Amino acid sequence: MDIHQVTHSLIMTSRLDGMGHLPIKVLKGVNGQESVALDPIGARPGDWVITIAFSAARTAAGDDKTLTDLTISGIIDDWSSQDC
Amino acid sequence: MDIHQVTHSLIMTSRLDGMGHLPIKVLKGVNGQESVALDPIGARPGDWVITIAFSAARTAAGDDKTLTDLTISGIIDDWSSQDC
Amino acid sequence: MDIHQVTHSLIMTSRLDGMGHLPIKVLKGVNGQESVALDPIGARPGDWVITIAFSAARTAAGDDKTLTDLTISGIIDDWSSQDC
Amino acid sequence: MDIHQVTHSLIMTSRLDGMGHLPIKVLKGVNGQESVALDPIGARPGDWVITIAFSAARTAAGDDKTLTDLTISGIIDDWSSQDC
Amino acid sequence: MDIHQVTHSLIMTSRLDGMGHLPIKVLKGVNGQESVALDPIGARPGDWVITIAFSAARTAAGDDKTLTDLTISGIIDDWSSQDC
Repeated sequence: MDIHQVTHSLIMTSRLDGMGHLPIKVLKGVNGQESVALDPIGARPGDWVITIAFSAARTAAGDDKTLTDLTISGIIDDWSSQDC
Repeated sequence: MDIHQVTHSLIMTSRLDGMGHLPIKVLKGVNGQESVALDPIGARPGDWVITIAFSAARTAAGDDKTLTDLTISGIIDDWSSQDC
Repeated sequence: MDIHQVTHSLIMTSRLDGMGHLPIKVLKGVNGQESVALDPIGARPGDWVITIAFSAARTAAGDDKTLTDLTISGIIDDWSSQDC
Repeated sequence: MDIHQVTHSLIMTSRLDGMGHLPIKVLKGVNGQESVALDPIGARPGDWVITIAFSAARTAAGDDKTLTDLTISGIIDDWSSQDC
Repeated sequence: MDIHQVTHSLIMTSRLDGMGHLPIKVLKGVNGQESVALDPIGARPGDWVITIAFSAARTAAGDDKTLTDLTISGIIDDWSSQDC
């Protein structure tokens, strides 16, 4: 699992039905790389979150049929103060 | 899921039947790295898209038997203006 | 499988039920990159551990339904002295 | 899926039976990194090919039981002239 | 699949039963990065080997229930002389 910070919600003009109706969030990793995840938790911009990848991401989204390879699975209270 | 920009369609002289009949697109990532995805959505060159990898890519292509590890799953309206 | 050193336990304010009740550890890889794993073994900060990723991580956590993509699967007695 | 150029066939002195009897090819990626794939298509040294990774690689090799994580799935006619 | 050179066997003070009883080898990749694999073949330090990752690694270890994400699947006779 990886640590990311939520930057903003993503709005798409066209998407596959199988992605479901969870919010889609843009994330930034510790090294600045961007990725995109489904969010069943309700994380807000600025929150530090844990993400789950691969097949477990589908289960984490609430349904093994959901189309995703990255899902937010938890919010960390305060990453900076923990990272010491 | 990752963010890529569509560069062009890919024409292959020989390919496995199991890849099906969806268009194949060459994508460029935010850091310039190239990859190749099936496109069930109809993205055009220049479009910014979301891609799904791993086993979910097969489902995203419309059939769990399709041979792919990367499938375009959505088009982002305007990545530059969102990325602020 | 990869080699990581345990840095500390991670406390989350909100997480998916499916992650279960195993401790969550923050790990640092040989190149300094951070990741997060479930810990069914009881590794302590400073321990060098082996991690299993992908679908096997779920089985390693004791239940194929557990939400994880990285699980600690063993403790190495003394990595520095082995790495010669 | 990724783009690779075939460099040569690989000869192994010992290998698991489950890898089957397809030719094994050494590939070089766009950034020079090397990898190894099963080849059900018959690509020749110098050919640019598309590879499929992860679980779909096993199906691409013709049998879900084949031991592989990377399989050549198509030949690109002329990568240099397409990459414009 | 990737090319690695075996460096040494790994001794663990504590490990999950599900990893089974195959030897565990530390490997070095072409770029020097280290990883750890199960070895059903009996590769010796200095041998160049092919590794299989992801779910196929479990099958390669002889049993889909084995806990691993990387398994040695073959020995290359002489990598240096082939790599020309």
